[in-house]
Amino acid sequence: MKRVAIRTEGEGDVQDLTPAVAEAVRASGVHEGVCVVSAVGSTCAVTTLEYEPGLVEDLGAALERVAPKNARYAHHERWGDYNGHSHIRAALLGPSVVLAIDGGRPVLGTWQQVVFVEFDTRPREREVAIQVVGGPAGPQRSKRNA
Amino acid sequence: MKRVAIRTEGEGDVQDLTPAVAEAVRASGVHEGVCVVSAVGSTCAVTTLEYEPGLVEDLGAALERVAPKNARYAHHERWGDYNGHSHIRAALLGPSVVLAIDGGRPVLGTWQQVVFVEFDTRPREREVAIQVVGGPAGPQRSKRNA
Amino acid sequence: MKRVAIRTEGEGDVQDLTPAVAEAVRASGVHEGVCVVSAVGSTCAVTTLEYEPGLVEDLGAALERVAPKNARYAHHERWGDYNGHSHIRAALLGPSVVLAIDGGRPVLGTWQQVVFVEFDTRPREREVAIQVVGGPAGPQRSKRNA
Repeated sequence: MKRVAIRTEGEGDVQDLTPAVAEAVRASGVHEGVCVVSAVGSTCAVTTLEYEPGLVEDLGAALERVAPKNARYAHHERWGDYNGHSHIRAALLGPSVVLAIDGGRPVLGTWQQVVFVEFDTRPREREVAIQVVGGPAGPQRSKRNA
Repeated sequence: MKRVAIRTEGEGDVQDLTPAVAEAVRASGVHEGVCVVSAVGSTCAVTTLEYEPGLVEDLGAALERVAPKNARYAHHERWGDYNGHSHIRAALLGPSVVLAIDGGRPVLGTWQQVVFVEFDTRPREREVAIQVVGGPAGPQRSKRNA
Repeated sequence: MKRVAIRTEGEGDVQDLTPAVAEAVRASGVHEGVCVVSAVGSTCAVTTLEYEPGLVEDLGAALERVAPKNARYAHHERWGDYNGHSHIRAALLGPSVVLAIDGGRPVLGTWQQVVFVEFDTRPREREVAIQVVGGPAGPQRSKRNA
């Protein structure tokens, strides 16, 4: 498994993981398989997005409609850490994306990037787990208990 | 890997992928494993849904609350292609679904179908990637570098 | 594949699956691989969340903004079962989570739990599918048609 360390600037920071994912797939030697890209933590997420500043802003605006920063959160009342919206946005977007691997490369559209989304209110040191499973070619039928 | 070509009628078109997924799993010969079903592109998504016209309409109504078609989008101002809401809805729903395979069949509930959701504003030729990993039976332990 | 049976109390019930997932991974003997945790049914979901009562309440409040219980649903008009919001919330959150497995353990943050979310309006007997694919160590390259 590959662990990618990233440093974020806090809420609203979106980073392109596509090159790291492509490199992890290449390094694995897997030609036909699947690749999971997973955010480690409960206030961040991974999805796919056309990675351009306009959509990064628009994603934040949409999530503000669902989990507004200044709404009432029971999480705040219990724990006083004022990042209830961060947790909820992360749970809604989901922690991981899984891609098919074909011919040794992750299958993505031309304008489709794998992105890490920071929801926590402060800059963080983050870790992304990239795991590849599969084989050299064809439908993957692994041997039991090999 | 299986690539399924589909033609959509544009925004709001939802298509049932379940038969194609079941066939891809059957053709792979995998009895115990996982199957990823992945939308190729940044303005479409895959999820599971009871596939009936009422819920297809209801899904659109819910996403209109989160990413309204006529809201302001920074993506529009930069690129002028007026599909910012399409990108945001796709990122929120997510590009892929992963199913467990048990006994050679994807595990789904009776009323649970795998669906492709088109968010782009115009009809599109789309591709869905279906990749299967696993083996003939039991917990899958593949051999390293076999 | 492991099937975990759970009993829920209906809408808003969130249950921690993390111990069951960790045990399924341990029992599989897989050290490097991926694990899918999948809700069987179209009115329930799986995601990751810091499992504490405040956030469970906050998640419900956020989803009420997107798919309000008392909005109009075309699903109701067709089928009269009054759980249109349950279906839509499930489709938005998504049926499954996929985790990387490293060193025989699922990769999660300290405050990040795998949770089952019940959206149906009545108590249900549910099933969660946990499937593990991978091998003993290193990048997984399974043998074709082994």
